[in-house]
Amino acid sequence: MVETPYLLIDEAKMLQNIERMAAIAQKNGIQLRPHAKTHKIPAIAKRQLAAGASGITVAKVSEAEVMQAHGIDNIFIAYPLVVESKIERALQLAKRIKMIVAVDSLVGAQKLSEVAARNQQTLAVRLEIDTGLNRTGVGYQDAVALAQAIQQLDNLELTGIYTYRGALLDGAPTLDTAAAGREEGELMAKLAGDIRASGIHLQDVSVGSTPTAEFVAQVEGITEIRPGTYVFGDRMQAAFGVHSLAECAACVVVTVVSRPKADLVIVDGGSKTFATDVQPNTAPLHLKGFGAVCGHPEAVFERMTEEHGMIRIPAAADIAVGDQLEIIPNHICSTVNLHNFAILQRNEGLERVEIAARGKLD
Amino acid sequence: MVETPYLLIDEAKMLQNIERMAAIAQKNGIQLRPHAKTHKIPAIAKRQLAAGASGITVAKVSEAEVMQAHGIDNIFIAYPLVVESKIERALQLAKRIKMIVAVDSLVGAQKLSEVAARNQQTLAVRLEIDTGLNRTGVGYQDAVALAQAIQQLDNLELTGIYTYRGALLDGAPTLDTAAAGREEGELMAKLAGDIRASGIHLQDVSVGSTPTAEFVAQVEGITEIRPGTYVFGDRMQAAFGVHSLAECAACVVVTVVSRPKADLVIVDGGSKTFATDVQPNTAPLHLKGFGAVCGHPEAVFERMTEEHGMIRIPAAADIAVGDQLEIIPNHICSTVNLHNFAILQRNEGLERVEIAARGKLD
Repeated sequence: MVETPYLLIDEAKMLQNIERMAAIAQKNGIQLRPHAKTHKIPAIAKRQLAAGASGITVAKVSEAEVMQAHGIDNIFIAYPLVVESKIERALQLAKRIKMIVAVDSLVGAQKLSEVAARNQQTLAVRLEIDTGLNRTGVGYQDAVALAQAIQQLDNLELTGIYTYRGALLDGAPTLDTAAAGREEGELMAKLAGDIRASGIHLQDVSVGSTPTAEFVAQVEGITEIRPGTYVFGDRMQAAFGVHSLAECAACVVVTVVSRPKADLVIVDGGSKTFATDVQPNTAPLHLKGFGAVCGHPEAVFERMTEEHGMIRIPAAADIAVGDQLEIIPNHICSTVNLHNFAILQRNEGLERVEIAARGKLD
Repeated sequence: MVETPYLLIDEAKMLQNIERMAAIAQKNGIQLRPHAKTHKIPAIAKRQLAAGASGITVAKVSEAEVMQAHGIDNIFIAYPLVVESKIERALQLAKRIKMIVAVDSLVGAQKLSEVAARNQQTLAVRLEIDTGLNRTGVGYQDAVALAQAIQQLDNLELTGIYTYRGALLDGAPTLDTAAAGREEGELMAKLAGDIRASGIHLQDVSVGSTPTAEFVAQVEGITEIRPGTYVFGDRMQAAFGVHSLAECAACVVVTVVSRPKADLVIVDGGSKTFATDVQPNTAPLHLKGFGAVCGHPEAVFERMTEEHGMIRIPAAADIAVGDQLEIIPNHICSTVNLHNFAILQRNEGLERVEIAARGKLD
């Protein structure tokens, strides 16, 4: 018996999701490099590779170290490394596997170059482009000049450009993921052309998120997509129309611990169990509540404290203290990060899987 | 060298916070049973006990197991246990240490009684009262009747009542923590009187949260307070006026990885590193952003994605790529839960401490 609350993964649905995205990449003749942040489980990364992915993406050196230790041999750290000790760690990995790291500033590139030179290694780098998300990434207008400056630095090989934008159009969240994907792809393809015209041999033009992947994959000049969430899916992606709720491969199983009023049940998972980064009622999705309660479409997961989930239900609902409920969270990636292990539901039975790259912050 | 992002605890400030709350309990002649959810570290629980706490509070059996394994011998699980396997685990603990468990429904009490009887043990229970938070807890009007019903059950000893309300007045969030504390205390003291009048010997009347502790402790008839956050403090408590920001004993250290615009820096901690359960601009605190950037009062921690923190700064701010920043999070308890370890800054130097009860969901 598994004690609640716990993360439950439906292997058959997960494999379907993996196949579907692999088919999108194959159909468009581009590479798929899934972001492992969603599952953080090496065995699932291997399933993605077995289905045709060319490598994986991670955000932190520590995640790359876990994945390498479990036999993954092609990793892109899609995050600017600016601290010597972390660059050293990435260089250690680069001795054993194919590694690409990110850069988004000249000062960062100089640091990478300096540490790589000291180690007598050459580091493959991709330049991150800000296409509207306003986080890391060089400004679009400054990208060609920075690419040229990086090209001049020793011990770095500028192999590509990449961006992450998500479902944004004109800088604002959108439900029109087709238009968002097309715009993202066209921005990046044009920029790649400009950089190549400046004399730089650029191999990879890497883009995309789960909701935009299908559309950005069709843009001429794009060579790679990096979706993450698709492996499980979640309530957010279902609202984007990527898949149905029934196709979500992961949920959290909770127990009803109290029904203090006819229209309110309390479950044993709150903000320590479900991520709160995708809040209800925010644009563009305007999700109602913190998750979808399977089998109870009228239930609203209204509030959470750390260990309590407050779910509003119809007074007539047949839910009693002690009952288990399955809840599909708004955001599965950050929810997975809250769990030390997952229960994998396979044809052969249940298997407990450690989430080996969970909580890897550095 | 410690890689960022990481949780940093200032031991001297923490000990001051521990002493201050112990003095509040002592002055009012009541017991202090800190909620260990804030630190999740057995060694810190022991510091609280050494300073005069009578025992500790946890929310889950798994947390109690960790604390017991590290030598804590007086634990209240302030959470209704309704599943047999968890009740069995609590009974195992009760053989070795002083254990109290919570109950808030007749069906829950019957389950506790049944499992305790099967194990030939008597379990000390406290009845949870809903004083306005609308989560677990029996309705105030129904409490006397439920106490009487529990009293009839075999193998249970009803030793007290407890509530958690936080800073609420008339059901709405308030900054008037003095009035909130007084009202909470008076509600519970009156109820304790009613239950005693019905012939039940009730020992403990347990209440309180960090912002209300000082005030509820003064109410006649209250025997125990259970604050948690005070041990470190956080931005939320500072806004409640519990302490100054300078008295916060814990922060997260991050590195600036990008400054893509003059007025924007990106740090290497996002929603995997900082809790998002206390959102900016919500009542009653209306906190600006997700944390306070030490030394930069004008900085606003505007947005987060999983690994990126977006901080708006004045264009003239002297912050460069590679710099470290210390950020006091809005909510320290849920932030601690995201970290596998903390760095304890002591007079003797830095010490790495495992957050042993982190991620204990069951």
